[in-house]
Amino acid sequence: MVIVMKAGATDTEIDGVRQHVESCGARTYFTRDGGRAALACPNPPKPLLDTALAALPGVEATAPWGTPYRLASRQFAPPGGRTVIRFGDGPRATVGGPELLVIAGPCSVEESATLREAAWSVRHAGAGALRGGAFKPRTSPYAFQGLGVEGLRRLAEVRRETGLPVVTEVIDPRHVEVVAEHADVLQIGARNMQNTALLSEVARVRRPVLLKRGLSATITELLLAAEYVLSQGNPDVILCERGIRSFETAVRYTLDVAAIPVLRRESHLPVIVDPSHAAGRSDLVAPLALAAVAAGADGLIVEVHPRPEAAWSDGKQSLDLTQFGALMRSVRSIALAAGRTFAGPRADHPGVPSSARQVEGV
Amino acid sequence: MVIVMKAGATDTEIDGVRQHVESCGARTYFTRDGGRAALACPNPPKPLLDTALAALPGVEATAPWGTPYRLASRQFAPPGGRTVIRFGDGPRATVGGPELLVIAGPCSVEESATLREAAWSVRHAGAGALRGGAFKPRTSPYAFQGLGVEGLRRLAEVRRETGLPVVTEVIDPRHVEVVAEHADVLQIGARNMQNTALLSEVARVRRPVLLKRGLSATITELLLAAEYVLSQGNPDVILCERGIRSFETAVRYTLDVAAIPVLRRESHLPVIVDPSHAAGRSDLVAPLALAAVAAGADGLIVEVHPRPEAAWSDGKQSLDLTQFGALMRSVRSIALAAGRTFAGPRADHPGVPSSARQVEGV
Amino acid sequence: MVIVMKAGATDTEIDGVRQHVESCGARTYFTRDGGRAALACPNPPKPLLDTALAALPGVEATAPWGTPYRLASRQFAPPGGRTVIRFGDGPRATVGGPELLVIAGPCSVEESATLREAAWSVRHAGAGALRGGAFKPRTSPYAFQGLGVEGLRRLAEVRRETGLPVVTEVIDPRHVEVVAEHADVLQIGARNMQNTALLSEVARVRRPVLLKRGLSATITELLLAAEYVLSQGNPDVILCERGIRSFETAVRYTLDVAAIPVLRRESHLPVIVDPSHAAGRSDLVAPLALAAVAAGADGLIVEVHPRPEAAWSDGKQSLDLTQFGALMRSVRSIALAAGRTFAGPRADHPGVPSSARQVEGV
Amino acid sequence: MVIVMKAGATDTEIDGVRQHVESCGARTYFTRDGGRAALACPNPPKPLLDTALAALPGVEATAPWGTPYRLASRQFAPPGGRTVIRFGDGPRATVGGPELLVIAGPCSVEESATLREAAWSVRHAGAGALRGGAFKPRTSPYAFQGLGVEGLRRLAEVRRETGLPVVTEVIDPRHVEVVAEHADVLQIGARNMQNTALLSEVARVRRPVLLKRGLSATITELLLAAEYVLSQGNPDVILCERGIRSFETAVRYTLDVAAIPVLRRESHLPVIVDPSHAAGRSDLVAPLALAAVAAGADGLIVEVHPRPEAAWSDGKQSLDLTQFGALMRSVRSIALAAGRTFAGPRADHPGVPSSARQVEGV
Repeated sequence: MVIVMKAGATDTEIDGVRQHVESCGARTYFTRDGGRAALACPNPPKPLLDTALAALPGVEATAPWGTPYRLASRQFAPPGGRTVIRFGDGPRATVGGPELLVIAGPCSVEESATLREAAWSVRHAGAGALRGGAFKPRTSPYAFQGLGVEGLRRLAEVRRETGLPVVTEVIDPRHVEVVAEHADVLQIGARNMQNTALLSEVARVRRPVLLKRGLSATITELLLAAEYVLSQGNPDVILCERGIRSFETAVRYTLDVAAIPVLRRESHLPVIVDPSHAAGRSDLVAPLALAAVAAGADGLIVEVHPRPEAAWSDGKQSLDLTQFGALMRSVRSIALAAGRTFAGPRADHPGVPSSARQVEGV
Repeated sequence: MVIVMKAGATDTEIDGVRQHVESCGARTYFTRDGGRAALACPNPPKPLLDTALAALPGVEATAPWGTPYRLASRQFAPPGGRTVIRFGDGPRATVGGPELLVIAGPCSVEESATLREAAWSVRHAGAGALRGGAFKPRTSPYAFQGLGVEGLRRLAEVRRETGLPVVTEVIDPRHVEVVAEHADVLQIGARNMQNTALLSEVARVRRPVLLKRGLSATITELLLAAEYVLSQGNPDVILCERGIRSFETAVRYTLDVAAIPVLRRESHLPVIVDPSHAAGRSDLVAPLALAAVAAGADGLIVEVHPRPEAAWSDGKQSLDLTQFGALMRSVRSIALAAGRTFAGPRADHPGVPSSARQVEGV
Repeated sequence: MVIVMKAGATDTEIDGVRQHVESCGARTYFTRDGGRAALACPNPPKPLLDTALAALPGVEATAPWGTPYRLASRQFAPPGGRTVIRFGDGPRATVGGPELLVIAGPCSVEESATLREAAWSVRHAGAGALRGGAFKPRTSPYAFQGLGVEGLRRLAEVRRETGLPVVTEVIDPRHVEVVAEHADVLQIGARNMQNTALLSEVARVRRPVLLKRGLSATITELLLAAEYVLSQGNPDVILCERGIRSFETAVRYTLDVAAIPVLRRESHLPVIVDPSHAAGRSDLVAPLALAAVAAGADGLIVEVHPRPEAAWSDGKQSLDLTQFGALMRSVRSIALAAGRTFAGPRADHPGVPSSARQVEGV
Repeated sequence: MVIVMKAGATDTEIDGVRQHVESCGARTYFTRDGGRAALACPNPPKPLLDTALAALPGVEATAPWGTPYRLASRQFAPPGGRTVIRFGDGPRATVGGPELLVIAGPCSVEESATLREAAWSVRHAGAGALRGGAFKPRTSPYAFQGLGVEGLRRLAEVRRETGLPVVTEVIDPRHVEVVAEHADVLQIGARNMQNTALLSEVARVRRPVLLKRGLSATITELLLAAEYVLSQGNPDVILCERGIRSFETAVRYTLDVAAIPVLRRESHLPVIVDPSHAAGRSDLVAPLALAAVAAGADGLIVEVHPRPEAAWSDGKQSLDLTQFGALMRSVRSIALAAGRTFAGPRADHPGVPSSARQVEGV
């Protein structure tokens, strides 16, 4: 339910309505409907529904939600029309605004030296954040499951050194606290998109959540999963399209590029794309990344490894440092043509960086 | 890795090999390869791989696994060729053997009286176990999320009264213990099939696990999810086909009836089918159930509610008590024609049971 | 549009309405709405829409179609509720009534001796019609494209000898006439389900059409394809579910077993199932066939070859003669349990027939 | 089979090998393998396979095809690596080279005036060819089936006036000749992608073929359908990705943007994209079109109508003339950023063209 105030309603009137709603046991969100103030109540309890709200001072009307998701819908956009999320202390770690964000790094956290090399290199090439998995949700119990807390420590260490904020996955509600201590953004993987216990737990920490679309989740289901987080108190959800299951076997997943504009029309939340997991093979990462940017994505999350052939997981789809540098130059061209800002590689970016220079730091 | 012993290998030789394997840090499983003893080691560590096993007394040869799943594969079937799982104290709560198992009950646990009515009625009609959700994984955060622990208590109470063992879903690793205290079988829902934290936790309790196939999980992925449970110590996994996502919109999900024979060829684990969630509408439950039995399913799990139109969730796909009675008679005909045993409705089953008689008990 | 006549409308009144409709340029179909006569007009032209029909003598009301397909819908069922199609001179070549129909034979027409052997054998085993492809729609231009008209001649010859009616595919509108001369039922393959030029052409001959569902056709699209045939004058369409495309790779196509009851609820046309193309492997043909019969299919179309390993096409999914005999015994059990009649194998059916006996004839 | 000649093989030697191959009844194609001459034979007959080819003068070796398609594969690319197709007399009707091609126009041919208005307008906005359907393959027999030959005449008339080459669909092998007389490019629709009778017929005319991917065709199947045309004598096939069937319902079809780079890696044929049919709604056409260009598409085919709300078919997904002008400016930016040439709108293009100016002509 959205309670729309009359034009010129006073703060006292708005406060009065808010107090009434909260006395019925519901949470309120301040928003605007055109030029008028409005109070949104995503899950109105019976006493509120029974109230003659139009009789309260300053109330113009009430409106139902037109979509199964509520806080995630455009109807509940913040001023400016889109949610912009800032995280970490990096100069570029903003997503949802005019600047494109690129998150890059290895699939798994491995040796600290490898992680450090990857981090410096992707930073030089223009990435705004570092990705790396410490807890890995694997299809087989016999596959490498990640370094766990030790992996988190290595991420935090490299974050201190490079200044790059860190995005990492959480797969167990009991780990949310420790992951939030070491990382800047908590990732929910595709296979956990509807793990409601986990969604409720990440809703309770003050870290943005990067929520990946499930392998066969509809766009509506993705927004409802985001709604679990939003409605339990965490307003910072980054949506991520990463490919869906289809009959085609030439790629690992079918990147649903239309999901980008659809999500941006339906929701105010930032939308990024993971071309690496969609493609499942490194030679297709660049065309998918460029398509995503052209279609309006707010960012990319890309797997990069100094030596993909030696990666502990997902080497087949990881770009090496040179390939990533080349990708970033192409991304910059398309981003600018698409009306985005994007700093791209540093002026002194060595193009094909020597490992030696990378680890010396900025 | 499977270590096959020579024909006539002695117990001492077998023990010697087992001790060696375990000294390398691996778990062993005793099995048979044709007439010969064999030791299976699903995840052989490096020291074991480096051992010249053929030099150990009594060893004939080693063989690799031919499938990504190992303990779930036919290669590792128990004597008799198939895993038979018994649970509860009910006379019919066996699955995987010659007798068909039918699990039935409401989608959600609601009022005790409703649950009791459903339970007596499905028992009279020939069901071997009662289903009912206390923790509900819902697509929307605004939908009814289940009664939680109170729901478990109601299930346990009705179990005591009717003698029917109880199957209920667990959605949070922190709830596994309390659910295992109140229920006989722990269900993992389709959306949690690859929730590895949850799979690892249910592997630690001594309760069978009913594992539903994910909405877009391949058969191999389902077996690998089962492998998470098996390889961490719980041998009792019941696989459940419940429909997959496809382009067709006439039904809620496309029942993959071929998954039944494929799973039974690939694995020794029992395979049951949920026609209610596949169909999403009650008029299609019977034909899907009958198809499943004809294709070789070991059992069914069916949503039944005394008054579907008043159900707190999934009423659209629930059978009423009369419809369920009719279904059970049809199931019996097909089961017998398919070479199964199935007791079916009690001799004194009232056909269209009056609510009064049902709650008087057996 | 359906024009419903008043109870007790006279033949003269009905004729008057029909003449009016036809004078507007539309075709009429006589049907019944409950106990009252009705005239259906699937594609009403503007002059008819502009007519004040209620003013014509004997007219009660007009009703729009509730479904995109019209003649195919249950609303337009013949007396008895279902279309029953008879073809050929064989004693069992009826589909849509109480008796199950099994159509069997090789994928392609090959040597006459092989075809003859297959035909006698499937006839002994209880098949009601012979299948065999003369014109083959192949994915690759380099694959065997069928024997063409020579294949038709061989089919007609074996039809004469065995008395079995023949079902064969037509892939080109220019071949419809010659195929209709040699065969009893014209098959439209899955890849041609929406080949409207071909559908229009088979609508013009007096042969039943076996219409296979396209690989990704919805049930509504299948019925609309049938409507192309019905609305252009051929009332005898047999619908065939043969598996759809999904992400699962364990089978060639995913048999949509729910399509059987859905089609039977939506339409009065007979529904048969092709388990061979769905499975793509012979070991799954039997469970899929039995599932189809249990779910209510009116018939089956099965690939059978005397020596599958030597078949010119689709050998991998063909049953040999022994396997087919065994299948027919299982089909009979399930069919009877499902309330069907099915003659099944002849009393003197040799079980595992010797080739010698087969070719001697009945 | 590819027969690779020795470095320095003479013309006489090459001719000798060709004559031998053709005497075996096979067609040959001259190609190159690195620096050496080679003769490709897509479908080698038995006498050729039995020949000791290595004994012929100048032959170095033979190599099998590595893919099910042959002439469509990269192994058989023309000099320059890609097939460039020119058609009509328009200055920009080239596809497969550096310049992007945009084909635009209404779904169906309607009134001549409407078609003329659309044609002049899309020409001014930078389109290189005009699309418009005269024979329409519709899902329902009751939907508008196109104007047929009269539609072809209107297309040809507007072609004469505007100089824009015409792309139109053919749905019946018996119409190929008349369509080829009136149009420059013959389109095969998605539902006819595996209509082998039609593919064989368009292979016989000297017009490029625009081949749309089937709704659930794999990339390999699309290339095999192209191979039907190539292997029967028509080398000019334009591949078109137009969205595939998936479970997602927010869009009509899921645009498989990865198919663009995959097709360009697997084949030398031009690859274009139809964002209009994929989206099924006009507001998504632009983001999908831009994504396609960024991913490397050689062109676009877009539905444009002067008054979409009054279109005889597909109005929901048609751009109006203003929207198309805006799209072309965006396409130009992305095309240039992606390294393509693209003339885009004429310098004197009026931006939001007044209908009056459009029909005055260039």
